[in-house]
Amino acid sequence: MNNVICGEDERIDDLQRNGYRIIQKKKGFCFGMDAVLLSGFAQVKEGEVAVDLGTGTGIIPILLEAKTNGKHFTGLEIQEEVAEMAGRSVRLNQLEDRVDIVRGDIKEASRLFGKASFDVVTSNPPYMNDNHGLKNPDLPKAIARHEVFCTLDDVCREASLLLKSGGRFYMVHRPHRLVEIITALKTYKLEPKRMKLVHPFADKEANMVLIEAVRGGKSMMKVEAPIIVYKEPGVYTQEIYDVYGY
Amino acid sequence: MNNVICGEDERIDDLQRNGYRIIQKKKGFCFGMDAVLLSGFAQVKEGEVAVDLGTGTGIIPILLEAKTNGKHFTGLEIQEEVAEMAGRSVRLNQLEDRVDIVRGDIKEASRLFGKASFDVVTSNPPYMNDNHGLKNPDLPKAIARHEVFCTLDDVCREASLLLKSGGRFYMVHRPHRLVEIITALKTYKLEPKRMKLVHPFADKEANMVLIEAVRGGKSMMKVEAPIIVYKEPGVYTQEIYDVYGY
Repeated sequence: MNNVICGEDERIDDLQRNGYRIIQKKKGFCFGMDAVLLSGFAQVKEGEVAVDLGTGTGIIPILLEAKTNGKHFTGLEIQEEVAEMAGRSVRLNQLEDRVDIVRGDIKEASRLFGKASFDVVTSNPPYMNDNHGLKNPDLPKAIARHEVFCTLDDVCREASLLLKSGGRFYMVHRPHRLVEIITALKTYKLEPKRMKLVHPFADKEANMVLIEAVRGGKSMMKVEAPIIVYKEPGVYTQEIYDVYGY
Repeated sequence: MNNVICGEDERIDDLQRNGYRIIQKKKGFCFGMDAVLLSGFAQVKEGEVAVDLGTGTGIIPILLEAKTNGKHFTGLEIQEEVAEMAGRSVRLNQLEDRVDIVRGDIKEASRLFGKASFDVVTSNPPYMNDNHGLKNPDLPKAIARHEVFCTLDDVCREASLLLKSGGRFYMVHRPHRLVEIITALKTYKLEPKRMKLVHPFADKEANMVLIEAVRGGKSMMKVEAPIIVYKEPGVYTQEIYDVYGY
């Protein structure tokens, strides 16, 4: 293990794609299945440029670089230490020409990058709004999970401003906020077009929702086949193995 | 077969519930799986009164009378001949004390019955709006399927007016109109709280959505386990056999 690349409080995980690896804090917020599923749901076509809002470890731009034919990927992260670590993951995989990690605030994203400057925006934003009992708003884990630095409304507004007309926004979020999500997307002229629910088991309620919205699109929703995570306790379905790349 | 009850162009089908039967036109619009699934999704509690907007054959009030502990069920139907036939199905099952069929217009429902007069409203409304190639707007089948006499907006507005505060609206519709559905419900203070997608096969996109909205409720959606109709071509899943009562 290269100590210049990876600190003692960090670990390096294999991403099972293109030999890519990622650096994560041993005790910090680690990427979850939601980010991996979003990287399988999002489409970045040949020549397109994409930005990930609130990129954390950089998992989404790194996986999208591996999985799609997109031309360039940017990850925006507000936390300095986290952004610096994501930058080291980019260098670890020698992706400096294809992936940029930028430190900055989602709320300022369209000023930072310019309006209508991306074909694709992705985000795995904090899921919890203020009502859900936040204990320590300064900790990186809290910042990743709670709407401390940005709200759902901020994410949708900036995604809309960043997208070219006809551009696509891909988000993973919690189903219990689905009505708010659809309302916020509509407010910013992002038309929800494609949705996929994720259920831990076939007979359980959904605990994640993947949604695609098109800047200036017409109203017509497609609800795709659901993703079922486990076929029995402890055993993933084939779809999950596939998206993880095993 | 009783010829007073049933005409020559009609047939009587067994509902597999309480020995109930229903009269349908041999060549007219017959109830579908959507109505049956809605009768399994809707909850009518002991002592509650319910109204079904656009009841057609009367399938939904008759099935809800069989399946729930509700006190009274009303079906509203605009087409005279269809309403008269539904009334005969009520008499055929000797449900005159518990089920009323009323001829009238959904758009006038809250004037007809009075505001805040029901605990539960159900509807299996026409799914198709004007853009989807209507051939003959006068035919009963067209009226049942296309928004000839009422729009999604009319149905949501009248459902809201008819419901007591905290009352529940249950609707089955097409997923491609989900964004419109949620927007219309929100417009009339009906908060979507519970949703179930129906997929013909586990790996196919949804072709029906069941939705529960609460008059004046807080924003919190639950997306329940999906309904899968066929486990293989021609063979229903157990859930479908259960809801049909076999």
